[in-house]
Amino acid sequence: MRLEEVVRARKRAARRLRQAHIAITPHEEETIEVSDFGLGDLDNVGLLVVVYENNDHYCAKEIVLLPRQICPEHRHPPSGEKNAGKQETFRCRSGEVYLYVPGEPTPNPRARVPEKYRKYLTIWKELLLQPGDQYTLPPDTLHWFQAGDKGAVLSEFSSVSTDENDIWTDPRLQRLPKID
Amino acid sequence: MRLEEVVRARKRAARRLRQAHIAITPHEEETIEVSDFGLGDLDNVGLLVVVYENNDHYCAKEIVLLPRQICPEHRHPPSGEKNAGKQETFRCRSGEVYLYVPGEPTPNPRARVPEKYRKYLTIWKELLLQPGDQYTLPPDTLHWFQAGDKGAVLSEFSSVSTDENDIWTDPRLQRLPKID
Repeated sequence: MRLEEVVRARKRAARRLRQAHIAITPHEEETIEVSDFGLGDLDNVGLLVVVYENNDHYCAKEIVLLPRQICPEHRHPPSGEKNAGKQETFRCRSGEVYLYVPGEPTPNPRARVPEKYRKYLTIWKELLLQPGDQYTLPPDTLHWFQAGDKGAVLSEFSSVSTDENDIWTDPRLQRLPKID
Repeated sequence: MRLEEVVRARKRAARRLRQAHIAITPHEEETIEVSDFGLGDLDNVGLLVVVYENNDHYCAKEIVLLPRQICPEHRHPPSGEKNAGKQETFRCRSGEVYLYVPGEPTPNPRARVPEKYRKYLTIWKELLLQPGDQYTLPPDTLHWFQAGDKGAVLSEFSSVSTDENDIWTDPRLQRLPKID
């Protein structure tokens, strides 16, 4: 991604957090993680993340999703004997999120996915998260999600986060692409 | 505490969360933890807590503090070989919190403490937490805090929470007193 695109995305994320009445510091705003996973289509596929804390024990993030933005399908595998893989709790703070997990596919799911991205979305059991709703995902479990028409803010509470180990169904994806 | 007092406190907490634009479910509202630590003086000393998640790896809570309400001095000791004690991150969401940790006492601290409670507050290095500010406390470290004049909402992200192990400087205190 180009640096100016990253800076613009950070401003959009910060504005959305303000609209959701979630305070972040100027330093946090300047370091919001922006990822288009290397696809160059941030409006449709990407993540904007404020990492509050990530230590050996726990991790807390705020995820900002643009309207209908998708976080692609992935899982957090075990990393070493002591780590069964990241376990995580998603809690919707504002907007609406459609979370997909393994299981019986939901008829008429709410997600709207551009045709070119459907190939790498293999699970379709839908969980609807509205403000105050949350779901805890066991380690090493496939999942993906999309925001509703108005975007969303999603808190993520988890065990230690090691994004570099994530396994994406679409092998082209990179969690933290290079910024030029 | 009497059940009717607990129910009234839960309603106050829920109202304060709504004012801070933080959504909780009806079930969460009905199960808000209310503790006066057995002192019978909830307005001055107590905690109102929504536990979002507490598992073997991590814990996330929302703490509602009434105006000038104090969470008394305590620490989270090691529990077993694998657990060095709860590590926790406090993040201010609304209002103002004065957090006290070991170190050089702050001259003219912001806390206002009724005389009868001063005896068991032994550390006075002050950290001011305003919305967006956070502080991570190492395991087994003494701390206490008080909200400012308008109350506060404080997110707590931590390793597993085992309140029954907490050690309080005031030996009379019970974290979860009986509800009659």
